[in-house]
Amino acid sequence: MSSENLTAILLMLCPDRKGLVSRISNFLFERGGNIIDLDEHVDRHEQMFFLRVAWDMKDFSISPDDLDGAFFPLAKEFGAQWSIRLNREQRRMAIFVSKLDHCLQEILWRHELGEFDAAIPLIISNHAELRYLADRYRIPFHVYEIDRQNLEEQEKREMDLLAKERIDTVALARYMQILSPKFVADYANKIVNIHHSFLPAFAGANPYKQAFERGVKIIGATSHYVTGVLDDGPIISQDIIRVSHKDSLEDFVRKGRDLERLVLARGLRLHLEDRILVHGRKTVVFE
Amino acid sequence: MSSENLTAILLMLCPDRKGLVSRISNFLFERGGNIIDLDEHVDRHEQMFFLRVAWDMKDFSISPDDLDGAFFPLAKEFGAQWSIRLNREQRRMAIFVSKLDHCLQEILWRHELGEFDAAIPLIISNHAELRYLADRYRIPFHVYEIDRQNLEEQEKREMDLLAKERIDTVALARYMQILSPKFVADYANKIVNIHHSFLPAFAGANPYKQAFERGVKIIGATSHYVTGVLDDGPIISQDIIRVSHKDSLEDFVRKGRDLERLVLARGLRLHLEDRILVHGRKTVVFE
Amino acid sequence: MSSENLTAILLMLCPDRKGLVSRISNFLFERGGNIIDLDEHVDRHEQMFFLRVAWDMKDFSISPDDLDGAFFPLAKEFGAQWSIRLNREQRRMAIFVSKLDHCLQEILWRHELGEFDAAIPLIISNHAELRYLADRYRIPFHVYEIDRQNLEEQEKREMDLLAKERIDTVALARYMQILSPKFVADYANKIVNIHHSFLPAFAGANPYKQAFERGVKIIGATSHYVTGVLDDGPIISQDIIRVSHKDSLEDFVRKGRDLERLVLARGLRLHLEDRILVHGRKTVVFE
Amino acid sequence: MSSENLTAILLMLCPDRKGLVSRISNFLFERGGNIIDLDEHVDRHEQMFFLRVAWDMKDFSISPDDLDGAFFPLAKEFGAQWSIRLNREQRRMAIFVSKLDHCLQEILWRHELGEFDAAIPLIISNHAELRYLADRYRIPFHVYEIDRQNLEEQEKREMDLLAKERIDTVALARYMQILSPKFVADYANKIVNIHHSFLPAFAGANPYKQAFERGVKIIGATSHYVTGVLDDGPIISQDIIRVSHKDSLEDFVRKGRDLERLVLARGLRLHLEDRILVHGRKTVVFE
Repeated sequence: MSSENLTAILLMLCPDRKGLVSRISNFLFERGGNIIDLDEHVDRHEQMFFLRVAWDMKDFSISPDDLDGAFFPLAKEFGAQWSIRLNREQRRMAIFVSKLDHCLQEILWRHELGEFDAAIPLIISNHAELRYLADRYRIPFHVYEIDRQNLEEQEKREMDLLAKERIDTVALARYMQILSPKFVADYANKIVNIHHSFLPAFAGANPYKQAFERGVKIIGATSHYVTGVLDDGPIISQDIIRVSHKDSLEDFVRKGRDLERLVLARGLRLHLEDRILVHGRKTVVFE
Repeated sequence: MSSENLTAILLMLCPDRKGLVSRISNFLFERGGNIIDLDEHVDRHEQMFFLRVAWDMKDFSISPDDLDGAFFPLAKEFGAQWSIRLNREQRRMAIFVSKLDHCLQEILWRHELGEFDAAIPLIISNHAELRYLADRYRIPFHVYEIDRQNLEEQEKREMDLLAKERIDTVALARYMQILSPKFVADYANKIVNIHHSFLPAFAGANPYKQAFERGVKIIGATSHYVTGVLDDGPIISQDIIRVSHKDSLEDFVRKGRDLERLVLARGLRLHLEDRILVHGRKTVVFE
Repeated sequence: MSSENLTAILLMLCPDRKGLVSRISNFLFERGGNIIDLDEHVDRHEQMFFLRVAWDMKDFSISPDDLDGAFFPLAKEFGAQWSIRLNREQRRMAIFVSKLDHCLQEILWRHELGEFDAAIPLIISNHAELRYLADRYRIPFHVYEIDRQNLEEQEKREMDLLAKERIDTVALARYMQILSPKFVADYANKIVNIHHSFLPAFAGANPYKQAFERGVKIIGATSHYVTGVLDDGPIISQDIIRVSHKDSLEDFVRKGRDLERLVLARGLRLHLEDRILVHGRKTVVFE
Repeated sequence: MSSENLTAILLMLCPDRKGLVSRISNFLFERGGNIIDLDEHVDRHEQMFFLRVAWDMKDFSISPDDLDGAFFPLAKEFGAQWSIRLNREQRRMAIFVSKLDHCLQEILWRHELGEFDAAIPLIISNHAELRYLADRYRIPFHVYEIDRQNLEEQEKREMDLLAKERIDTVALARYMQILSPKFVADYANKIVNIHHSFLPAFAGANPYKQAFERGVKIIGATSHYVTGVLDDGPIISQDIIRVSHKDSLEDFVRKGRDLERLVLARGLRLHLEDRILVHGRKTVVFE
């Protein structure tokens, strides 16, 4: 990638105060940066400021390596949580999957098509069934079978592998195994899960069965960041589809598959493009 | 209404068995009835049969008054729950409302337009605020203020009024008062409520606040029959609208209003056209 | 309204160039303005910059009356089309309607509820039928019957009335009369129409009939600014609803009514809140 | 497949008359058939009757081979167009594709998952690019390159192949080549196409570009049967997705891909399950 196409994205949140947009846009303008896209949001109630700004590095007077250092004083003054990422630093995503193929298939197909700006160096599964699919797309497939005894050591191996491969994003593509608090903490706001219900309705196991038995007329799917509490993390994206009395539980599952893969793909895309800020239990999503 | 336009609607459910459609369509054909619309559903899992059939009474050899008696033997043989209603027997709907006007406004407007095939002989409220709206549409408005002490006696008065006016359908148009078990039992499958959430998510009080705090990306509304358990009755219709971090709690409420009135109106329309069969916690809705 | 709550909204578009956000946010910051909301969009292909920024006038060093003059040099430098509106300058909207009540009813109800930040000084119709509805909401109702002979002079009277009442927004709430080129030109980007189809499908007369005969499975509605070409103006908002073979032409019309009033109300709300910029045949809508 | 699971589906349409449901359900009941599913529709305006009925062949007194003959007299009396298909007679579907992979990928994946009750004996393309995808799913891939000179002879070869493989359904999965009138006539109501717009808006070439330039706020996709008039055949299914000024033409294409593959898959599923009756320019779809 030549510097011609080099862009940077700043994501930040801080307590609201006067002049934030002015100060930051000046910071960029004075150094020769051309703003490509700027989105801001102020939560009046929480008195919080949220910002995503992308700019062209072509004529920028600060070198990519010095960016963080140059922005640090401003961020410190604002009391901000922030990150700057250059588009040349491609994200590295691991996919965790169990036996159901549809979400994995969807991610791999979209990746092949170039929809995700990320490398996928590896797939991890607790079962061997979907190796053929990883093979089709020539992505290394690692099986870590998990039982009550070996959970801790297997997860240790997984985390070593993630570290070695410098993974910064984990996609849970219908991975039927709960991650340990340590894993979740180490990858806070970096693990995107798909839950096959319209959360918070039908959290936990068998959401389609729960929905079927309740007699709902609409089913949903939810992509969210994983936290220590099951199916409770900040929601990124949701979508729904209509069902009726004609639909059996199998129809719920079939229709739900189409939702799950689209909603997970959408959540991943938003994450990979640095469009999400997490504040408490909520997300600000700059689309 | 002349007999030219007289139609009858049979709604029934019974254990499934061979020949049900044949036996019932023969019953109608042999007596000169022309089927206008027939919808059936078989729940394979529950082994239950659900039917709605509407027919023209023009050349029917049985008089309207003898219809129930004529169908009784067949229904008994099938072990069916059933009802037959003639379109000349217009339903009589009471609306219960508190202080929020949007659902009441919607029902009255649609009624004026002829969308509901029902008379609305009265509106009941626990507050006086919306009398002006009832006056606009010239519908009697009865206020029964309710406090901890007088609930039982006030509800008794309401039920006497409903009985006197031969009410067969009750619309709870954001009525902020819980009905007694006796009321609910007397009007089983006849009270349609609107709940301002995508049930079963956010049952109970302040669903928009709950949804706002959870950070959902979609909000919903649900029309359902009222049962003894709060917000737990069989669901008739649901719909949703998208929200984002830009939406304040007030925006949730505003957007939700549009959902509530459409979903309640839809639920009422389906009920008033005899399109709903209740089985356990679920509905079969013939649209 | 005290200066405590005084806010200003700048809407502008100009050729894109470096530093636009910085220059404008500085302009506000240096004068003590606190940005409440800022939305920008760059059309890379057209090389155009679009901006909506709202700020608090409380500590602003420029008086409301001098605002335009103060911003003028900047706007001139940028070659911008722009407007600044203070929230104390309430918009004044006229509604044009014919015989169908649903869109008028919707606007009046929402207005009563406070959803539109605008005065509605008058309603104009080419028929007398809906006077009762204007009366309900105590809004002056003017009938200008139009035939082939009197179109020009009647429209002249309407425009005089609009001028006298300082109308800045015209809502065509299913107004079945084509406005003259002069009228449209005088109120360019100020007339919001609802067309009862998913434009550009089924432009012109009888869109539901066209849709019914084509056998579509979805119908739509479109709110748009009116231009000299029928049903061709910049689209503001669209929505859809599903139909099936079970729906008669009357069902299309009934279902469509719900779409029309929501989509028109949404279009008006966006317009009244200065959220729309028109560029060529398209709109940029800051939601 | 044992006779235990043998079911038959009758699809028919005829002029409406009294007793049709009764006569047909009797025909089945008297011969020991148990109705699994019955859907009927009467078009009052056109005076037409549409029926889909599925029944269990387990205790049916007529052998599968004699079914057509047994029903013939009834059908003749009614003046019906009709077909009976046994579930043991699996449909045979050919896929036509050009260079875009997403619709082909979707069909092959769903087929592998068992969502389509059909064999896919072959894929035909006018380009070689997607052979790798056919290979992944081990389906024969035939390339017939087409230019102005060889259209007729190449299509002749294709039709010979279809005949030889007893193909009864053709899926056009973004096949960028117009079929000849003869081909279309030979496979009337058997060719399902996906058009990447909300028909009838944006028929013809480059619908996303047309939509982008018109500034629509919603884009759509349409699956339909192919007739002699381009993009004019009876519509089976449609769906939409929202777009905004933020979406480039490339975003329209990307978002549209998700619509296209779902809407085509849905259209194919409905066709393969004998749920569609065509009457004039419209479909009756029994879902």
